[in-house]
Amino acid sequence: MTGMLAIEPLTERAFAPFGRVLQAQGAHHFPINQGTTTRFHALAVADPGADGRAILSIFRATRCADPIEIAMLERHPLGSQAFMPLSAHDWLVVTALQPHAPALRCFRATGAQGVQYDAGVWHHPLLVLAPEQDFLVVDRQGPGDNLEMVRIEPRRIRIAD
Amino acid sequence: MTGMLAIEPLTERAFAPFGRVLQAQGAHHFPINQGTTTRFHALAVADPGADGRAILSIFRATRCADPIEIAMLERHPLGSQAFMPLSAHDWLVVTALQPHAPALRCFRATGAQGVQYDAGVWHHPLLVLAPEQDFLVVDRQGPGDNLEMVRIEPRRIRIAD
Repeated sequence: MTGMLAIEPLTERAFAPFGRVLQAQGAHHFPINQGTTTRFHALAVADPGADGRAILSIFRATRCADPIEIAMLERHPLGSQAFMPLSAHDWLVVTALQPHAPALRCFRATGAQGVQYDAGVWHHPLLVLAPEQDFLVVDRQGPGDNLEMVRIEPRRIRIAD
Repeated sequence: MTGMLAIEPLTERAFAPFGRVLQAQGAHHFPINQGTTTRFHALAVADPGADGRAILSIFRATRCADPIEIAMLERHPLGSQAFMPLSAHDWLVVTALQPHAPALRCFRATGAQGVQYDAGVWHHPLLVLAPEQDFLVVDRQGPGDNLEMVRIEPRRIRIAD
């Protein structure tokens, strides 16, 4: 249907042009702490740029209306931005290599999957399916303008099954 | 009782000598994303040192025996290390300003509380109360030896209520 955006499963391979998937499944891992803990190692490297630093924040997102209208994108040209869900609810990742509607991709992430957008990658702000969901966010603090926003021709996402 | 370690609640004030508590409650916050999300901002700054970089990993920890014996501490002299629980179970934070038993502190964190240890702060490896619990970990990757471990006179923690 014209104007509707298809929802794809989030996989490392599909997301590779945009950044990294943060998940234990399939990741390089090894035992630590006398075998009591498994380390799924270096899923992503924070990129705060040469003059920035990586900060840790919590984002508390609320569910949007269904269908969701995607009419804008933003990006952070100076640093990466990672989102890791703190509760096990699926959520949506909308991103694009170019800031126009035909380039949009929509991935459904599980509650065990986070993402890190590479610096400069267009994406929609957080879209959650639960009434409320918290994320640990690792992004850049530093000098300069690290936020660009564009309006795009609207697309819709229907989240009801 | 000699040899037993008291469990304290985890508060920002009590933990301040060791690093930062990562929690939304009480944190500086503001609305973003057209009001659909609240940002609890810059709860911690990752410190990977001058020649390191901050990496994101997942640690999957398994529950220890009860009582827990605390007989060693470790520290990372070159960078900070942050732990954020990815499921809402209480867990234990054991830390010390000096690497000997009388300096030990044990904090019970809720599932909505993470911590970031400052570089060089002694702490025990992850101690979880659920059978298994995942954490997002932000720590340092880079040259040099970033792990020191010491054995200490044992102390015990009784976790059954």
